[in-house]
Amino acid sequence: MRIALGVSYLGTAYQGWQSQPGGQTVQDRLERALATFADVPTIATLCAGRTDAGVHGLNQVVHFDAPVERAMNSWVRGTNRYLPDDIAVQWALPVAATFHARNSARSRRYAYVLLESPVRPSVEAGRVGWVFRPLALEPMQRAAHHLLGEHDFSSFRAAQCQALSPVKHLYRIDIGRRGPYWRFDFEANAFLHHMIRNIMGCLIAVGQGLRPPDWMATVRDARNREIAAPTFAPDGLYFLGPVYDADLGLPRHTPAFDWLPL
Amino acid sequence: MRIALGVSYLGTAYQGWQSQPGGQTVQDRLERALATFADVPTIATLCAGRTDAGVHGLNQVVHFDAPVERAMNSWVRGTNRYLPDDIAVQWALPVAATFHARNSARSRRYAYVLLESPVRPSVEAGRVGWVFRPLALEPMQRAAHHLLGEHDFSSFRAAQCQALSPVKHLYRIDIGRRGPYWRFDFEANAFLHHMIRNIMGCLIAVGQGLRPPDWMATVRDARNREIAAPTFAPDGLYFLGPVYDADLGLPRHTPAFDWLPL
Repeated sequence: MRIALGVSYLGTAYQGWQSQPGGQTVQDRLERALATFADVPTIATLCAGRTDAGVHGLNQVVHFDAPVERAMNSWVRGTNRYLPDDIAVQWALPVAATFHARNSARSRRYAYVLLESPVRPSVEAGRVGWVFRPLALEPMQRAAHHLLGEHDFSSFRAAQCQALSPVKHLYRIDIGRRGPYWRFDFEANAFLHHMIRNIMGCLIAVGQGLRPPDWMATVRDARNREIAAPTFAPDGLYFLGPVYDADLGLPRHTPAFDWLPL
Repeated sequence: MRIALGVSYLGTAYQGWQSQPGGQTVQDRLERALATFADVPTIATLCAGRTDAGVHGLNQVVHFDAPVERAMNSWVRGTNRYLPDDIAVQWALPVAATFHARNSARSRRYAYVLLESPVRPSVEAGRVGWVFRPLALEPMQRAAHHLLGEHDFSSFRAAQCQALSPVKHLYRIDIGRRGPYWRFDFEANAFLHHMIRNIMGCLIAVGQGLRPPDWMATVRDARNREIAAPTFAPDGLYFLGPVYDADLGLPRHTPAFDWLPL
């Protein structure tokens, strides 16, 4: 039986999602916990979106083929017993054998949270990006508009990106704020490696008046990573999760969605 | 010159506010950073409210007598250079020699944030208390009402409490929620050791229907710690800060106020 899981985690202590020889990744910890609970040597999972070191996940979705039969509720509680404090399975549901956490996803959603303050973060260290120069909303909105739709995002792509194509469809970038916290919401069919952190670097340059809004179109059209702003910090980046066809009935939210500002 | 500082910190990694021989307290870290910045052997600070191990501070206020002359802005930036990621001075202002961070405070404000979910915290581990059984608002509000005003709070007082009197004046307990997060706001002239965590244990017992709302009056009148619920976890407790006379002009908020749900 194929099972889908929703997983929330704080990425600060991990070398990203994907399994590595060292074992200090979220996937390594999850697979070890699943295998311990199921009392089998290994369980392999496949995720909707691999996150970088320091990036958080609120509703990461994985699928795996269960080697033993357990109640869905037990997959949640039993696995959580063997997971560290900063990772928790939120839900487990049976899915068709054709379901694929990555390939079945229609789109992915991310949020970037940014603190604008003369003083660096403390209570929220590791959970927000930080700028000390004030940001202006309207220029950032105009710059963001240049990225909507289908484009070759090579200018925002990390050298080590493994995607087959740099062409992605960006559905929306919404920008809002609550007090000193800015929140940027992104949705696209898929994202390139470092794409949001590279876009954030450019949006901040525009928001601080270092570049005009139309510079974003120049960067986009250059298809050249050298032209864009430096990659911004991973700290404030949250993978909200994939979006599947509604008739699959998979949850799109976890409790931590209400923890983020806005 | 006497200086007041506003300090934000995440209490998770510390053995509370107050200095200890081991040095793993927020006061130890702050005083070492101040002394390093001022290039003097020691600087002693006095705070508005000592917090327990694991309890966070959003606008803790301290005062100290500056052994050297520096711009206020430099006390903030310079000290923060020597503080760990999870502690930051938010503001510095000159105050009269008669100002006293503890004795000048009219009242103290705390917030307790609680996650109500079948699954334990992950992204917010260490930052929220957790209940898996649902809570009802109205019984908790009725129970809280029994605590408002001036009372002998001995039933909610830790054995090791050093306060001269168990009689305190509780001005308000406001209860609200955002999705699965509950927030309880407390303001009193002063609090006994563990008082809020002990009240939280009782409010949760009432909210889950284990006790009727009027049981809170029985507990209050017993003046006996044995009768109240167990001390609840420190994780979700935030010292919002002291309230001083407005004409002192000291800030009542720091950026992290907008980080908390609600």
